[in-house]
Amino acid sequence: MIKPRTAPGTLELLPTEQIAFQRMLDVIRSGYERFGFLPIETPAYEVTDVLLTKTGGETERQVLFVQSTGALEKAAANPAAGLPDLALRFDLTVPLARYVAEHEHQLTFPFRRYQMQRVYRGERPQRGRFREFYQCDIDIIGKDGLSSRHDAECPAVIHTIFTDLAIGPFTVQLNNRKLMRGYFEDLGLTDADLQVTVLREVDKLDKRGADAIRQTLVGEGLGLSEEAADAVLALVAVRSTSHQEALAHLDRVLGESRGSELLATGVAELREVLTVLRDLGVPESDYALNFSIARGLDYYTGTVYETTLDDHPEIGSVCSGGRYDDLAGQYTKSTLPGVGMSIGLSRLFWQLREAGLVQTAESTVQVLVPQLDEAHLPQCLALATDLRQGGINTEVVLDGGKLGKQLKYADRAGIRFVAILGEQEVGAGTVTIKDLRRQDQFSVARDEIVPALRVELAQPLDLPRDD
Amino acid sequence: MIKPRTAPGTLELLPTEQIAFQRMLDVIRSGYERFGFLPIETPAYEVTDVLLTKTGGETERQVLFVQSTGALEKAAANPAAGLPDLALRFDLTVPLARYVAEHEHQLTFPFRRYQMQRVYRGERPQRGRFREFYQCDIDIIGKDGLSSRHDAECPAVIHTIFTDLAIGPFTVQLNNRKLMRGYFEDLGLTDADLQVTVLREVDKLDKRGADAIRQTLVGEGLGLSEEAADAVLALVAVRSTSHQEALAHLDRVLGESRGSELLATGVAELREVLTVLRDLGVPESDYALNFSIARGLDYYTGTVYETTLDDHPEIGSVCSGGRYDDLAGQYTKSTLPGVGMSIGLSRLFWQLREAGLVQTAESTVQVLVPQLDEAHLPQCLALATDLRQGGINTEVVLDGGKLGKQLKYADRAGIRFVAILGEQEVGAGTVTIKDLRRQDQFSVARDEIVPALRVELAQPLDLPRDD
Repeated sequence: MIKPRTAPGTLELLPTEQIAFQRMLDVIRSGYERFGFLPIETPAYEVTDVLLTKTGGETERQVLFVQSTGALEKAAANPAAGLPDLALRFDLTVPLARYVAEHEHQLTFPFRRYQMQRVYRGERPQRGRFREFYQCDIDIIGKDGLSSRHDAECPAVIHTIFTDLAIGPFTVQLNNRKLMRGYFEDLGLTDADLQVTVLREVDKLDKRGADAIRQTLVGEGLGLSEEAADAVLALVAVRSTSHQEALAHLDRVLGESRGSELLATGVAELREVLTVLRDLGVPESDYALNFSIARGLDYYTGTVYETTLDDHPEIGSVCSGGRYDDLAGQYTKSTLPGVGMSIGLSRLFWQLREAGLVQTAESTVQVLVPQLDEAHLPQCLALATDLRQGGINTEVVLDGGKLGKQLKYADRAGIRFVAILGEQEVGAGTVTIKDLRRQDQFSVARDEIVPALRVELAQPLDLPRDD
Repeated sequence: MIKPRTAPGTLELLPTEQIAFQRMLDVIRSGYERFGFLPIETPAYEVTDVLLTKTGGETERQVLFVQSTGALEKAAANPAAGLPDLALRFDLTVPLARYVAEHEHQLTFPFRRYQMQRVYRGERPQRGRFREFYQCDIDIIGKDGLSSRHDAECPAVIHTIFTDLAIGPFTVQLNNRKLMRGYFEDLGLTDADLQVTVLREVDKLDKRGADAIRQTLVGEGLGLSEEAADAVLALVAVRSTSHQEALAHLDRVLGESRGSELLATGVAELREVLTVLRDLGVPESDYALNFSIARGLDYYTGTVYETTLDDHPEIGSVCSGGRYDDLAGQYTKSTLPGVGMSIGLSRLFWQLREAGLVQTAESTVQVLVPQLDEAHLPQCLALATDLRQGGINTEVVLDGGKLGKQLKYADRAGIRFVAILGEQEVGAGTVTIKDLRRQDQFSVARDEIVPALRVELAQPLDLPRDD
């Protein structure tokens, strides 16, 4: 006998949780589609040399490789042959780059795609950190150019999705790496590597605190002057609380600039993003400038985003992303600038569940048809068929048992309605409906059960009934 | 520069194809849910000793193993350590067995689950045979027992799904391995191993033809008498063309039996399946007895199914499955009988595409808002927001360009409506709608665009308009 167990670092859900997870996936997909993004899926694994072109040593150490028995035998016979031929994707960005470069001539640009699949990282499993997890990405890829207006579309769709997910108030926080680097330029920090190093330090502000960051900035490695460190820390303290205030911050930063073109470009880009966000009707309470958001990845070159839950700052960013200059330079000579955001859904779900914010009360099954008397099974089956053809998710009890036990099962499983067809009902041409949520019951004519249940299902549950 | 390419044996789709594929997934999922099946997902890989308990050498040779860089290094240092710790699932049945055994005490039985995920096989890639492909499975798992009535639920839901997929007429074909083995018993073929071998031969009837099968049956290895071989071939030639005829075939087989209890049980089970199928309202034209269906896998013990497209017999079975006595004997002492069916969607999609049966004309994007004049971008953005809030999938052109080019893009991309907001429309408070499918256009008040488009989208496209 082998002990049944899941592999370490994977998140496997019970059906009620899976239903809640699936509903989140559906909300995300629906949001992406409403904003005109097209679906793609890529294989779970890529050819190793395609996957690992861009990456450094750390990513390669986290890659999970794939090998058939035959490949394992070959590798054992020739240990110097190098890495296995195939490897599981560690994000959806590299597969997107490969996809766009491979199918470039069959796609229309700007190419707006969404992709919701699992990715794999061979890191040490930790609480809430998974080796297999869902990412739900959107990206807009231009050919040769892509206006900054597109940088407003990602936060707008994310706004729609987080509103629909109904997990509490949230803020999409915006910054721009050109603005940051231009500001550093004005401070005399013109070395590009140094700018990137400073950005990476600043990105740790929330974790390490301003004092620790200051010490690093003026320390031996970076060597900023006290004045420069002060100025950097002053900038990264900026947060806006309204649309007007955000514009005013940009005006001030530009007004105080010593002439960096990069800063002026960053300000102009952020201004355009803010304008389009407002024109798209995103409420100003739901977005803000936050000049401490730098994103660790050097990949980003302009707008950067993070999204936080206002009531759960401890969760950190639940949706991040940004603008990049060239998606697929390793695969194609075409210049493909883009902008994107990503929701790490497995981690978000796990955190919401930890915080007690996942609703698992309602099954996908809407009606249970219990079995009172085997003699009426044909009528029960016909009833179930009518309900199903009416679009209502229905389970029929085929094995019988006590009604009380069947009702208890429905209640525990989160099935809201029970449609009872016993001796009496069959005689009268009716069905007795029990509403287990509202704890009441009523009788409907057998012919009218589908419209009657549709009306019930369409009503919001929280309202008291008016009978 | 690295050549962008997908790994061998994977099926990657362009967005229009992905939309068609996703629609098939949605139809399948909706069908499974309508019949009261609950969703689960399992990790892509399992612990190797959990995955490979039951399987023989052939399956193990097809398994794809997963290893981190660290594990590769360890394996290189100790080549005798055996197989890698993790392996990708090769079907959804073994993960289901592991899931049910692992979570047994948190599940309610009969446990009705659906699962739609990719599986992996390290076989040599061939045309239309993939190493990574979707399986869409349903199973009903009982504890200690599960009545044969459940064997009718799988073909009933498959019937609903193939009806909704609208890929032409199809037949769910039924048989029962107890009936077959009981019939062999009556012929004096009482050895269980011999029975299984004969079943496996019979399963090749369509491929090899009756003459070749007869030669194998009477040949050295199996050694059936001419009479026994004749009787076997007479049985497997049986097909029903109506419900009554199916019942008559069962009566005849039972009447001619020399008393095998196994045969009587098989007949009773099939009779119950047929009865419940009829009571569930499945049209008799869509199911049939076919006594040549044996399924190669010894795993199956009772009812077995295959589904064929009537107009495309060359495709073979597009959905198969059956009844098994014990799902998870390798993981738990509990006896878990079950019944299930599986749609191999990647292969089905590929075959439908080859046959020209995949409809890729319609985008998920329903409306394009083109950009005529940058000055009206705010109005265009507000229009898009209204459409999106009205549940209509909308793309806005943010970068401008000639209207003709924008219309051509919409047409090629399969976007049906274009909502034009130019100087004139803004002045008049209207929007001009172009219907690219019907090739006409009309004007609506700006305030009424959402209900107007909803009406258009709700109308079937094939009907001529009555204006």
